[in-house]
Amino acid sequence: MLKVVSSEDALNMVKTQFDFLKAEKENVSISNCLGRILFEDIFSVENIPAFNRSTVDGYALRASNTFGSSESSPAQLRVIGEVLMGEKTEIELYEDECVKISTGGMLPSGADSVVMVENTDCSFLEYCLVQKAVSPFENVTKKGDDIKEKDIVLKKGKIITSREIGILAALGINRISVAKKIKVGIISTGDEIVPIDSEKQFGQIRDINTHILSSLVKELGCDSTEYGIIKDDYDSILTALKTAVNENDIVLISGGSSAGIRDMTADIISSLGEVYFHGIAIKPGKPTILGKAQNTVVFGLPGHPMAAYFVTLKFVKPLIDSILCKESTERLFNGQLTQNISSNHGREEIVCVKISGDKVQPYFGKSGVISLLSKSDGYIIIDRNLEGLRQGDEVQVFLF
Amino acid sequence: MLKVVSSEDALNMVKTQFDFLKAEKENVSISNCLGRILFEDIFSVENIPAFNRSTVDGYALRASNTFGSSESSPAQLRVIGEVLMGEKTEIELYEDECVKISTGGMLPSGADSVVMVENTDCSFLEYCLVQKAVSPFENVTKKGDDIKEKDIVLKKGKIITSREIGILAALGINRISVAKKIKVGIISTGDEIVPIDSEKQFGQIRDINTHILSSLVKELGCDSTEYGIIKDDYDSILTALKTAVNENDIVLISGGSSAGIRDMTADIISSLGEVYFHGIAIKPGKPTILGKAQNTVVFGLPGHPMAAYFVTLKFVKPLIDSILCKESTERLFNGQLTQNISSNHGREEIVCVKISGDKVQPYFGKSGVISLLSKSDGYIIIDRNLEGLRQGDEVQVFLF
Repeated sequence: MLKVVSSEDALNMVKTQFDFLKAEKENVSISNCLGRILFEDIFSVENIPAFNRSTVDGYALRASNTFGSSESSPAQLRVIGEVLMGEKTEIELYEDECVKISTGGMLPSGADSVVMVENTDCSFLEYCLVQKAVSPFENVTKKGDDIKEKDIVLKKGKIITSREIGILAALGINRISVAKKIKVGIISTGDEIVPIDSEKQFGQIRDINTHILSSLVKELGCDSTEYGIIKDDYDSILTALKTAVNENDIVLISGGSSAGIRDMTADIISSLGEVYFHGIAIKPGKPTILGKAQNTVVFGLPGHPMAAYFVTLKFVKPLIDSILCKESTERLFNGQLTQNISSNHGREEIVCVKISGDKVQPYFGKSGVISLLSKSDGYIIIDRNLEGLRQGDEVQVFLF
Repeated sequence: MLKVVSSEDALNMVKTQFDFLKAEKENVSISNCLGRILFEDIFSVENIPAFNRSTVDGYALRASNTFGSSESSPAQLRVIGEVLMGEKTEIELYEDECVKISTGGMLPSGADSVVMVENTDCSFLEYCLVQKAVSPFENVTKKGDDIKEKDIVLKKGKIITSREIGILAALGINRISVAKKIKVGIISTGDEIVPIDSEKQFGQIRDINTHILSSLVKELGCDSTEYGIIKDDYDSILTALKTAVNENDIVLISGGSSAGIRDMTADIISSLGEVYFHGIAIKPGKPTILGKAQNTVVFGLPGHPMAAYFVTLKFVKPLIDSILCKESTERLFNGQLTQNISSNHGREEIVCVKISGDKVQPYFGKSGVISLLSKSDGYIIIDRNLEGLRQGDEVQVFLF
């Protein structure tokens, strides 16, 4: 019954079977889009700046008129006017003339640079003494230098941070299309599983998965709905799964660590649609099921929280990112392993690690230890074709 | 009037003057604490696991009874019972005995390891043939191996991610104390500033700062209140600032790029309390004011969005982190600079950079270019005692 596939094949199946899933658009205000995924390319309809702009308080002039000038031999320019910030100037500037200008002010026609007020002596009425040479476009941001009209400024798939919001505001864009959040349903199963705030009897296990998976999918940009703890019973699981499938784009049903229960979960998913694989050659995470019911993706996750967490990171996150058309945000670190790790040939292995300087310290043989989730900086993956890694090996860490 | 301090002194003043500010506690459910800052140490009141636990489906036994066993020469052990997951077993196991056990099941007294079901032949009624030797504690998580009773499991200041939520759930902790969010008020000033969605007249500038600063402080874990755009007028700014000071822990008032307006802003802050410095030797960001009004921190930020953004990152963020007792989350990258950068001796300089492989490409001389915020991966800081950096220099990048 167990159809075990390699990690690579599992990922490919996730991608190809659900290639048809694409997020919908949602129009939101930029005050309300932090962390969302941009779902359209943003074009500029204007030049920023719209004119040659001074970056300092000073005097706009022709750079060539200042060449060779110094404190002892200043250039003497005639002050023919002033440009205030926010003002459209009609002044035309000629040889040996200058115009007082504030930071952000528009350079008058004929001027190509600005000398800072600190480098002038303007204690005279009509004249200004320039005590330092400036080069063309010194202290000036040229028209379109920042953003050019018709440029694609932000690409679809970009995660919107305060920096993107700054750019959107600069372009005068107040509303944008973002990817509608994906709905993920979370089901915990198991006769032994109890709510975390209930009095736990000996041997019972707290329902960690509902909490860790629900918060993980929120971190991945999804809405999460929890369906509670369901007993290891065909009809109960079937009923819960049907409801969750109806209400979500993706369902994560965890638990069923024993082979019999796993098979039952697979049967239930089958009865609602199709099962693509039942087992991944990865540790932790082997008893993972991928299925489809209606157009909803169903992941049967291992009952162990660490396994459920990593399977979600490794196999569910790429699907979510692909549905959202989200840019890659994998954060990687390369360093040297501090000790040997052995591994079973034929299956991929995930090992939590701690980074210190350029050293990577593995927490080996402790895949079940949940406190590692907070102690570790990330994890490494040992290839299925390897029988382990050696101390000093260069490894790539996937940072949390 | 302009009292310019070094970047280092500015940071020290921010820290020492507002050392008395500490966040309050807030009690929240773990379903509702993602991204918040833990405001208490979390101790474990129990061992996890609470008993020696099997990590596989198989047979619990004494490892010594399997030594030397193989497929051709299996060890023959008597099956004396079964332990189901979630069940407290009273079985005592002796020499040459074994007990059927499921993943997660409690090891009976006398057993020290588990052989996987795959490595047994149990087609007999009373006997099980063990075809592979196991070592002591193989396939077993020992009592307290994950978390020991009375251990500090999570420290105050920890940012709560799905991983910490997993650990809290494992400990049966449903509510925790987090740092109450800091309230930050945002004021934009300037006669030339217009709302981003209004028809912009020539030379007017869109109010980028309200949007970029408001979203940045949200990213930093604060609540943001926006007070709109205030004209460059003493009484208007005074009124707005008074309101914002009353309603917030920190106020960011940006704008006033010209020296006169900057002085006015400093005067207004002075009239409500005290000004500690007025100018930082940093580019961008020089015209920055630090003051206090009542017990509220007031930052007068430069009008230019890039400058306002970086000053908030460099000087406001450390204060926020310190009030929240938040662990450091600076993400750094070391790489080689791809080109020379010159810099003014005597002031620190922030330069946006793009990373490719281990190369760091500076966007030099473009501090006013807002599109860089989305193009860059982070920034480097050129020390005030340097006159620049050279191609090939190892630089430290502060990642966004």
